[in-house]
Amino acid sequence: MSTLAAVSVDPNALHFVGMQPEPSALEYNVSSDSVLAAVTDGYDVLALPITNPSFRARVTSTSQPARSSVIEPPSLSEVSIQPNSPYTPHVFGLVSKWIELDSNDVRVASLSAQVLQHELAYAAFCGIGYVVVPGPKRRNNVSLYAEAINSALAAAPFTKIILHLAMAEYVDSATISDTPSAVSQISIWDIWNTIRTICDYPSRLSVGLQIPPQLPSQVVLSRWFAEPVSILFLSGKVFLQNSKGYPVLSKAHQYFMFKFLKLHPYTILQDIRESARARTNRQFVSKEDETAYLIYLRHLHKNLPPPTPMEEFGKGYEDFLQKPLQPLSDNLESKTYEVFEKDPVKYEQYEKAIFQALTKRQEQGLVIIAVVGAGRGPLVARALKAAEAAKTSVFVFAVEKNPSAYIYLLQRKAQEWGDNVEVVCSDMRTWRLQQGVDIIVSELLGSFGDNELSPECLDGVQEVLKPSGIMIPQSYSAHFIPALSPKIYSAIKSQNKEEAANTPYVALLQAVDLLATNIHQAWEFTHPSPLAKSKRESTYDGLSLELALQQTSVTSNTPAIINEHNTRHSKGRFLCENRAVMHGFAGYFESVLYGDVEISIRPDTLGKKSKDMVSWFPIWFPLSEPLYVPDESEIEISVWRKTDNRRVWYEWLVETFVTIPGSSTLDRRESSSSRTSTAATNSRVRLSCSKLHNANGKYSSMNL
Amino acid sequence: MSTLAAVSVDPNALHFVGMQPEPSALEYNVSSDSVLAAVTDGYDVLALPITNPSFRARVTSTSQPARSSVIEPPSLSEVSIQPNSPYTPHVFGLVSKWIELDSNDVRVASLSAQVLQHELAYAAFCGIGYVVVPGPKRRNNVSLYAEAINSALAAAPFTKIILHLAMAEYVDSATISDTPSAVSQISIWDIWNTIRTICDYPSRLSVGLQIPPQLPSQVVLSRWFAEPVSILFLSGKVFLQNSKGYPVLSKAHQYFMFKFLKLHPYTILQDIRESARARTNRQFVSKEDETAYLIYLRHLHKNLPPPTPMEEFGKGYEDFLQKPLQPLSDNLESKTYEVFEKDPVKYEQYEKAIFQALTKRQEQGLVIIAVVGAGRGPLVARALKAAEAAKTSVFVFAVEKNPSAYIYLLQRKAQEWGDNVEVVCSDMRTWRLQQGVDIIVSELLGSFGDNELSPECLDGVQEVLKPSGIMIPQSYSAHFIPALSPKIYSAIKSQNKEEAANTPYVALLQAVDLLATNIHQAWEFTHPSPLAKSKRESTYDGLSLELALQQTSVTSNTPAIINEHNTRHSKGRFLCENRAVMHGFAGYFESVLYGDVEISIRPDTLGKKSKDMVSWFPIWFPLSEPLYVPDESEIEISVWRKTDNRRVWYEWLVETFVTIPGSSTLDRRESSSSRTSTAATNSRVRLSCSKLHNANGKYSSMNL
Repeated sequence: MSTLAAVSVDPNALHFVGMQPEPSALEYNVSSDSVLAAVTDGYDVLALPITNPSFRARVTSTSQPARSSVIEPPSLSEVSIQPNSPYTPHVFGLVSKWIELDSNDVRVASLSAQVLQHELAYAAFCGIGYVVVPGPKRRNNVSLYAEAINSALAAAPFTKIILHLAMAEYVDSATISDTPSAVSQISIWDIWNTIRTICDYPSRLSVGLQIPPQLPSQVVLSRWFAEPVSILFLSGKVFLQNSKGYPVLSKAHQYFMFKFLKLHPYTILQDIRESARARTNRQFVSKEDETAYLIYLRHLHKNLPPPTPMEEFGKGYEDFLQKPLQPLSDNLESKTYEVFEKDPVKYEQYEKAIFQALTKRQEQGLVIIAVVGAGRGPLVARALKAAEAAKTSVFVFAVEKNPSAYIYLLQRKAQEWGDNVEVVCSDMRTWRLQQGVDIIVSELLGSFGDNELSPECLDGVQEVLKPSGIMIPQSYSAHFIPALSPKIYSAIKSQNKEEAANTPYVALLQAVDLLATNIHQAWEFTHPSPLAKSKRESTYDGLSLELALQQTSVTSNTPAIINEHNTRHSKGRFLCENRAVMHGFAGYFESVLYGDVEISIRPDTLGKKSKDMVSWFPIWFPLSEPLYVPDESEIEISVWRKTDNRRVWYEWLVETFVTIPGSSTLDRRESSSSRTSTAATNSRVRLSCSKLHNANGKYSSMNL
Repeated sequence: MSTLAAVSVDPNALHFVGMQPEPSALEYNVSSDSVLAAVTDGYDVLALPITNPSFRARVTSTSQPARSSVIEPPSLSEVSIQPNSPYTPHVFGLVSKWIELDSNDVRVASLSAQVLQHELAYAAFCGIGYVVVPGPKRRNNVSLYAEAINSALAAAPFTKIILHLAMAEYVDSATISDTPSAVSQISIWDIWNTIRTICDYPSRLSVGLQIPPQLPSQVVLSRWFAEPVSILFLSGKVFLQNSKGYPVLSKAHQYFMFKFLKLHPYTILQDIRESARARTNRQFVSKEDETAYLIYLRHLHKNLPPPTPMEEFGKGYEDFLQKPLQPLSDNLESKTYEVFEKDPVKYEQYEKAIFQALTKRQEQGLVIIAVVGAGRGPLVARALKAAEAAKTSVFVFAVEKNPSAYIYLLQRKAQEWGDNVEVVCSDMRTWRLQQGVDIIVSELLGSFGDNELSPECLDGVQEVLKPSGIMIPQSYSAHFIPALSPKIYSAIKSQNKEEAANTPYVALLQAVDLLATNIHQAWEFTHPSPLAKSKRESTYDGLSLELALQQTSVTSNTPAIINEHNTRHSKGRFLCENRAVMHGFAGYFESVLYGDVEISIRPDTLGKKSKDMVSWFPIWFPLSEPLYVPDESEIEISVWRKTDNRRVWYEWLVETFVTIPGSSTLDRRESSSSRTSTAATNSRVRLSCSKLHNANGKYSSMNL
């Protein structure tokens, strides 16, 4: 779906609360001609009401309490769209705005639901694929509204239903005390969330957002950005006038459009004749006066800011879920290596790190470097380059377990590197050497740092390191933050298997709203590892005699865990200021390669540490069920890194809490009888907890 | 599993918070002999620690920060239970109480988890099926504890793990202000709920409840009663002494035992030697002094109060989920009729109602009665009996659609009833008669009133009713209330299919805790129905010409709904005072048969209206995911009764809210800067909502 501009004949911008006045008359003579005219004018699509005021009149007369509460479908004289029009693929249908699916009057609600179903049925018959339904009119009957939408989705099984919603409620601060219910800047998002939760995240249900003259706060904008917004409603009244009298958008609205156009919504222009009249001060406006809005939108669309390197690199992969690579157990293809070698930033940082390591050494003489997991050799080349710059003589071992990559390396040695490089085909964990190595360089990091088993691999190879030796990277850490992403949740849900929600994914996160201001550092690994050394033999050179004896004496099916020192547990606490629903959490890593040379994919530090590095997308840990979190609640995420000698895996769970100000429950009860102690104690109340995901590594793990 | 009494060698009752002092010495010499001795004394099972203090000593020495954090399994000298004992089927294993799975010290937590796994493994090797694990020791590390339990469940795949928990925390009112976290009377239940939620409701995980000397409130008791309590720990110290010096339980404890023994838990006696010493004032107590506790328990067990008629009738069906009958589309078997005819109360009430209807009539002469859905004729017999009592001549039509039951009725007419009864084989909806009927009697009610399609059936038959005619029942209503039932939730979850959580069930609710004090009346049906009459022809006599024309002109796949007047919607609001988790809601019906003759299965009115009626179990509407509700929250349940001309079905959803006292969110933020307006506005915050269950009748419906 490309971004299109469309025109709505609907003369009024829609507001959220309260009934709309009936359009006095339709501005256009609704016919095939008007569609044709609109398309000729450069619009892609025309948005038209499905029925006309005659239908409304009939329904209204039925709504008097009478014997029959059954509405018959609209007749030919009651529809706005001709049933035999060839242009209906270019039409969006607008469901009557006067219906009240959430009426307190059972009869009105029932008639409204029938009108909705009739209009949807007629639109579907005409071949109209997108139908806009007015949003709910009441805060307290959302369940009623949602049930009607759910029925409509089932009755029109191929129609995309778009709920027309305001971005936010405009709360008059003077009236706050009159509206004790939960009015907040994202209360309309809250209502949308309730509707789609009740409807169980249907793929054909999306949002049509009315763009207001005054844009709401960043909190509201980034929330909607994570939702399925398929239409932007843009009134001519929102436009400003430039010095030449043409309609233009404010800077804020331009930025808004730049951001949201990434989601590829349709834009529906409203009130353009009326706005053109106001702009030109003429009663009769020319076609040019009207199409000026469309032309501006086209212009805006052509002049989008250029994509960042990550946007360029990740094009088409936005929010696409990939299983993390398992380079330890799977051999990569040459193409995969090639993709990663293209990173302009990562290898620069490695070269800098090797250079610093070489120049800061006290010892003189030949420096032995081992590039472990050498792949096709990019780090070998960088090591040689760094040595040249540092004016140091080096000998480089290129250790690679993938036999095909080994051949590739042999060729590079023959053609480029010569005698200063030795290529070794070996698993780094079992590679042994008579002499000691000064610097071990590896690039085994995954999106969460240790998730491609870097700690286990480096534990094995560090035996070849001299006591004074250096490992690059020196350390790396895992980080996470809770997030909302209905898009990712739906993708996982649609797989319809337990495994899907118990697997971490690598994904270029786009339609994701982070739910806290702090990112939590979970844990760190440093190399060389003091704990690993003492256990090297027993871990990787087969079982020692003692261990073998010990294991035979074990009566359980859980032999002693040898990699215990690489297990981790971390609990992160996050304050979630604005109500939201949590679908999972995003994970990142940071790494100190050497000295002050770092790389990072944490959104708040990547710009400073390794701007425009593209090798890693974030990791996503899903939740099998969304957790709703009210305003000012606390989210606690617990993550474990576990192992059983054969595999390594993550387990995770989430708990949520709110702090009720005032008094504790017991306190409150007591004080209702005697109000002596008024010392307010806050009480922290558990709201929900998830199950333990991927318990015992049942669904996903990395093989050792 | 029958109710057994067992003895624990564990000399101390366990408390919830804080570490236990190490048992100074084991009271019994743990050997095969002690098990044999216990069994000989009349105990069924002996509860023994799995390891002894030597194992603890070794683990404690390991817990010093050192290189290895790996605990080796216990050796022969470190176990309390002999590996070759033939009596292990009569042994429950007690995991060491000194472990701290939820320690803040990562090292201690890790060692504890290893101890747990070793002890479980050894117990499993020995063939011990039940192992008791001490409960968590900290409020804030429940996730850590739960993760360890979850790992243990996986490592010991056949062992039943019982968490030893106090029933409630005993909060010293003086210290409340020092414990700002959520201390409430059901805080321990809350922790249990968190653990089993994280572990995802494992069937092998249950609760061992410590019975305190002072029983907690009814709220706490009924909460635990709904949980999987497989062991009751009963200390000798809880017993009183009767006038003859024998140990007895207080009245309150007796009632407690009577109630809980319905769940068939084991009872483990503790501290009996010590208690016997205190009781007898002797240092050396006799075997008789000790077994007095066991003898009393056996006595108690033999003298349970007699079951109510419903308990007797429903024996073995407690919480067993049955799909509701569909007597309209399925023909019942003679045996099924027979079961329902046994109800001592229901037919008495019908006879009274018919009697009242006959005696209150103004008109003279022969009274025509139609028993519709006559089955095997119980209501025909009652109608004749009532007529005799009322000294009224009647003629009874017995209308039955089931051809086999029709034959049964014919035989009864021939043998019992004679010429005053005519048996008709017909669907009551299409049965027509030249003359009018005075009284229509039916028994079409389901557990939720209308769920066996009584409204639709009676709409059809009411055409034969005289304008002044009476229908019995005159009216019926549906009622519901939110409830907790982990047992039912687990049963539905274990079916592992979407359908299971989208179907209402009929069940004798036992391990269920109702979460509100009010039961909500959803809707009512009255007969004869003024709305049904006008549409009779079009509904049941084939399509009228107008309707046929109309339907051919309909372009949608949703033809006009003819039974619209039998659709219903209701939203019930409930205050849930004590935190809980909602697994579904229980449904009931009430019915006015005639005048003041009523029947009811609502727990709060059944005693008054139709005590000991056994024909109906309640209905249960499940939730696919449990909803956690904090203290003082509101639950809103929306239920729809819908139809599409071919079927009738229910849809339901649940929303939860809390009211935050003080100020609204916006208010709070503003007042943080300027504290001018201190008028407290309460803010009602949405906590969660379920999806719409059984949307569009996808998973369950009643066929018309």
